[in-house]
Amino acid sequence: MNKKEKTRRRFLQYGAGLAGLAVGGIGTARGQTAESEAAQPKNLRSYGERSRFEKTARTFGDGSPNTFTPLQDLDGIITPSSLHYVFTRGITPMDIDPQQHRLLIHGMVERPLIFTMAELKRFPAVSRIHFIECVANTAPTRGRAEEERVQERFGKSSCSEWTGVLLSTVLKECGLQKGASWLLAESADRVTHSMSITMEKALDDAMLAYGQNGEAVRPDQGYPLRLLVPGWEGVRNVKWLKRIQVGDKPFMTHIEIGTNASLRKDGKARWFNIEMGPKSVITRPSGGQQLSGPGFHEITGLAWSGGGTIKRVEVTTDGGRTWKDANLPGPILPKAHTRFRFPWNWNGEEAVLQSRCTDERGAVQPSLLELAKIWGVEPSYFRKTENSVIHFNPIQPWKVNRDGSVKNAIWEV
Amino acid sequence: MNKKEKTRRRFLQYGAGLAGLAVGGIGTARGQTAESEAAQPKNLRSYGERSRFEKTARTFGDGSPNTFTPLQDLDGIITPSSLHYVFTRGITPMDIDPQQHRLLIHGMVERPLIFTMAELKRFPAVSRIHFIECVANTAPTRGRAEEERVQERFGKSSCSEWTGVLLSTVLKECGLQKGASWLLAESADRVTHSMSITMEKALDDAMLAYGQNGEAVRPDQGYPLRLLVPGWEGVRNVKWLKRIQVGDKPFMTHIEIGTNASLRKDGKARWFNIEMGPKSVITRPSGGQQLSGPGFHEITGLAWSGGGTIKRVEVTTDGGRTWKDANLPGPILPKAHTRFRFPWNWNGEEAVLQSRCTDERGAVQPSLLELAKIWGVEPSYFRKTENSVIHFNPIQPWKVNRDGSVKNAIWEV
Repeated sequence: MNKKEKTRRRFLQYGAGLAGLAVGGIGTARGQTAESEAAQPKNLRSYGERSRFEKTARTFGDGSPNTFTPLQDLDGIITPSSLHYVFTRGITPMDIDPQQHRLLIHGMVERPLIFTMAELKRFPAVSRIHFIECVANTAPTRGRAEEERVQERFGKSSCSEWTGVLLSTVLKECGLQKGASWLLAESADRVTHSMSITMEKALDDAMLAYGQNGEAVRPDQGYPLRLLVPGWEGVRNVKWLKRIQVGDKPFMTHIEIGTNASLRKDGKARWFNIEMGPKSVITRPSGGQQLSGPGFHEITGLAWSGGGTIKRVEVTTDGGRTWKDANLPGPILPKAHTRFRFPWNWNGEEAVLQSRCTDERGAVQPSLLELAKIWGVEPSYFRKTENSVIHFNPIQPWKVNRDGSVKNAIWEV
Repeated sequence: MNKKEKTRRRFLQYGAGLAGLAVGGIGTARGQTAESEAAQPKNLRSYGERSRFEKTARTFGDGSPNTFTPLQDLDGIITPSSLHYVFTRGITPMDIDPQQHRLLIHGMVERPLIFTMAELKRFPAVSRIHFIECVANTAPTRGRAEEERVQERFGKSSCSEWTGVLLSTVLKECGLQKGASWLLAESADRVTHSMSITMEKALDDAMLAYGQNGEAVRPDQGYPLRLLVPGWEGVRNVKWLKRIQVGDKPFMTHIEIGTNASLRKDGKARWFNIEMGPKSVITRPSGGQQLSGPGFHEITGLAWSGGGTIKRVEVTTDGGRTWKDANLPGPILPKAHTRFRFPWNWNGEEAVLQSRCTDERGAVQPSLLELAKIWGVEPSYFRKTENSVIHFNPIQPWKVNRDGSVKNAIWEV
């Protein structure tokens, strides 16, 4: 094989039609923006915006203010703040004045205290990259499963660099009374959302967060202050945080013992199942996408676990017969979205793509069948909308058809 | 000392007046948003915005389209894309259609090729967190030095999570001819900015970047495609990249041998001084800020080096007599902004705060006097505006006056 053939072969690794024409087309490249260049308006110079050609957006839940992150369009591990998912029972308060906002800490403390935002910012701060995931993420929906995209199925998980003061630092200022073992966190929006947090978590890595991806927390993420309980159900990361009450038992709010309790087959509910399990998903190719044709396609996706750092992601392209390790190019951070990449040459035949992850504790993302076994139910149980299915983290299969279309195949395997 | 006194003392660690009143004020916290809550408009649900109370913004250079990042307001290591500094010789083209944009690679290659954006995105991708810093960052300005803020002095450095294809991957597709050792990168904006890059860098970590902080590269950062040469002068990270020409010697563009060459005392210029040296700066407290009074103030700032990973940041609060290690809470990544934090109790007397960093190669950020020695000049040389001062990375002193005001003291030490 001569040199030309060798380099040609290297080119073909990535599939036919990847790169185009030879010289002669230079004019196209040179001329294209000569006429269309426009000056940047002054407001965009102060605070920039994306190109008007970029249309990726959050999508909406049925008749609710809730939105999903377009995971299929994202790169890296940081979710742009403008695209962070929103899940709330009320509406986002847009008018909280940080000068007026206060945090009250009271209950079983030596000194009940009220903090201004400026006072909270005087404490030593920390910045950490963490995901937040809604407990209902990936839950079976009423739509036709095969038409579902990764955005609507997995888009209630997002990842930011959060900055704030550790809750432990502030609780030390208040002084804890003997026996203090739980706290209640309460929001300042109209619905007064409140959730219980264990003191163990409060003194571990819980954070009073006022920064997100470098700037202030966004209104729909709790501006000016949210509670961050890394790795725990999103619903416990209380937004627009205004009050923390310290006590000696869980506060049994209506959400934690009602709406968000996992109701099981025997009619019993599992309460305080608060840590998010290991989960991964292939974001490209994924449901609703269309492959241009056989050849090279990089498979990429995200993995995360409330249990800590992702140690391994495996990918199968043959419906689960063989699994191979994906690349984890990093950063690989505890309780953070972790990017994986896997090279794949599609031969044009039907294929089922899946990923599964393992976290630092050795917890492995289960298959749908394994998850059903853990729950003690038939797999069909998860499909029935009258059953409350949360903390649902089975391996996600995407089926690639011969025409290049990609469909959700969760119920087919 | 009884328990109450103990916790009281812990409280006082952070200075008097940090946290406020005891119970009784609950009403303030509860009532504050009851009337002011407003629904979030639909466009903000698709793509969110910051609170209207947040005003931090890029500031402008004199009569130019260039802007500075408000480092004093940022947290963590990620610069929000809307606040990334901009330095350009032309104006930001706002109308480049990614469907029409092409990258031509030609010159000493086996196969000259033209790539569409879709083709570039078919290649295996990487995501990496890197700073970009303008070669003129921190250069002495014409303004009154003592009034300068960190934004205008250091705000031509920003840090993003970049995604793209390694240039080495794409060059392999084209096939390099024997002797190919340099390349020219050229922009698609009106001024046709072009710079030389060594083949060594091109085959190391240079990237064709189309993603920034999760979404598409912003227009003012080169949408839809920029060259990323991590750790090198910002000016070589060519934006709106349309053409790469491979050759066997540097292309000697007017910027690299004229404008951006370091002119020395003897009239000679230093060319191709392309890697950014180790630099750090305290962003809070910094020039133009006002301390509320004696007591606890956390010192925080950023350190970075084109030479790789930051290994150490030291802080002095007594004008350089004693230095102590700052905390590096991480993430600590190669060629990325690295956050440092340092606890400080201000006694109300005059103080000079400085930071200095050391990178993985052992390169230490020099003092102004040390830098003058390296250049073979008197320190006053750097103040003269007729001298071209770039790659200027001396230790930055901020002077805290008795009234709590903070001033730039670069020329005082």
